[in-house]
Amino acid sequence: MSRTVVSSARKTVIIGFDQPFCIIGERINPTGRKKLAAEMAAGDFSTVERDALAQVEAGALMLDVNAGIPLADEPAILAETIKLVQSLTDVPLSIDSSIVAALEAGLSVYQGKALVNSVTGEEERLEAVLPLVAKHGAAVVAISNDETGISEDPDVRFAVAKKIVERAQDYGIAKEDVVVDPLVMPIGAMGTAGRQVFALVRRLREELGVNTTCGASNISFGVPNRHDLNAAFLAMAAGAGMTSAIMNPLHPQEMVGVMAADVLNGVDTNCGRWIRKFREPTAGDTESGGREGRGERRRRRAAG
Amino acid sequence: MSRTVVSSARKTVIIGFDQPFCIIGERINPTGRKKLAAEMAAGDFSTVERDALAQVEAGALMLDVNAGIPLADEPAILAETIKLVQSLTDVPLSIDSSIVAALEAGLSVYQGKALVNSVTGEEERLEAVLPLVAKHGAAVVAISNDETGISEDPDVRFAVAKKIVERAQDYGIAKEDVVVDPLVMPIGAMGTAGRQVFALVRRLREELGVNTTCGASNISFGVPNRHDLNAAFLAMAAGAGMTSAIMNPLHPQEMVGVMAADVLNGVDTNCGRWIRKFREPTAGDTESGGREGRGERRRRRAAG
Repeated sequence: MSRTVVSSARKTVIIGFDQPFCIIGERINPTGRKKLAAEMAAGDFSTVERDALAQVEAGALMLDVNAGIPLADEPAILAETIKLVQSLTDVPLSIDSSIVAALEAGLSVYQGKALVNSVTGEEERLEAVLPLVAKHGAAVVAISNDETGISEDPDVRFAVAKKIVERAQDYGIAKEDVVVDPLVMPIGAMGTAGRQVFALVRRLREELGVNTTCGASNISFGVPNRHDLNAAFLAMAAGAGMTSAIMNPLHPQEMVGVMAADVLNGVDTNCGRWIRKFREPTAGDTESGGREGRGERRRRRAAG
Repeated sequence: MSRTVVSSARKTVIIGFDQPFCIIGERINPTGRKKLAAEMAAGDFSTVERDALAQVEAGALMLDVNAGIPLADEPAILAETIKLVQSLTDVPLSIDSSIVAALEAGLSVYQGKALVNSVTGEEERLEAVLPLVAKHGAAVVAISNDETGISEDPDVRFAVAKKIVERAQDYGIAKEDVVVDPLVMPIGAMGTAGRQVFALVRRLREELGVNTTCGASNISFGVPNRHDLNAAFLAMAAGAGMTSAIMNPLHPQEMVGVMAADVLNGVDTNCGRWIRKFREPTAGDTESGGREGRGERRRRRAAG
């Protein structure tokens, strides 16, 4: 029973097999968001503030924070963003950068136990990131690729994950503090992408006993009706044993998929959260062949 | 690789691990539908006609046909209903009754290879139904309960399924022609109901190598927003290895859940059916954070 404990100064979140699926909000990330990138580079954090609050309001249990802006001082901006977000909300953060100095700057201002996003199986990354994670007593996302790239062979991806977990232990980082990202490929380009991830997640859980995460929306890249496909993917991934995802909590379909998976995995005790969200005094919902309750129509309209 | 082949006079459907999820339309069933029961008892099959055509139009690959009306001549009505439905549509049928004489009457008029729904692990049922299935060269749904009732212990349910499969083989019915229903309990009454079914389906597939089915909507009995919960359940069940379900194909959410599961399980080749259903020339669908395409809004409106 692997439990990854992360925290802010005032709040602890557990990622684990017996826990509700951990929704990590992905929005604070200038990659592919030109306007946000320009704002952050200019010291304007108004969008970051709105994104932070909106994602927590929508149900994010953690927030991913990325400040990857070309030609900008990423370490300084990342540190500033983290301080700001921690002043606005209690949820623990995932400190997201491919630049070690930025991870270091983020960790140095972070209050609590962060999730470092990420380390890969590349030797150079392992040797640079793991000591930093150990020094700050953080947890870390381990992405299962290495010098040879992203293998299409699930056995290779499993082996890379295993190597990272073992190396982390050499640095004194417990297995519980490594959250493996098995890498989600676009299903439109690779028809086996779904089955591969589900099989990998099951193995990572059963054989390695580690928690897992992923960038969920990658599965639907290039395919229409992405939200419904993402929602089913999240439910199926959670069914296979995935315990968290970096995703957009502002999309209602994806959130409903995760909430339903929590009910069906037995981690939403007595269906409490589901019932609180959807209960409504109509007869329709309780009849098998019945018409939809008004709550469903309203929610769909709100999403549309 | 278990393949259950069923057919009508002109059409063959395969239930199997490498096939799209087999949607068996549940609507032609007077249980809990007083008006339909009265109509069928009076020889009025207009609702049956509409239900048959609408379900096939909505994507059902098979139709379940039940004529269980108290105090009526069920064998005669079931036979008449089957003849009518087979005159209207090509899809193979599941002949559904708890009365052996009705199954016999249905099989005697059925054209093709039917699915008999169902046999349980009770000795009396096994000895009455299996010879009938063997005689007509049909396939059969095996429900994993017996004289002791429905066990809450998944090991017992697995053992009952195994017993039925073995007994069927004694009667010359191949394992491929037994589709096991692991029994879906309401998640609102039993928080482990989802995990139990998923684990059972995986075992039935990996250890027994059989196809599986279920009455899907039972999972959400008594819980609000049943359609979204059913949709996630179907996707997760398909992810665990379930290959068919008796369900209502007129509910768009459930159908989207099944279609998404087919994509993610790699059995919707090149996402062909998904793309045909949802493609639309908007930019939104191809961007991660983008707005929803018009197709999604339209579908939701149609469902509300």
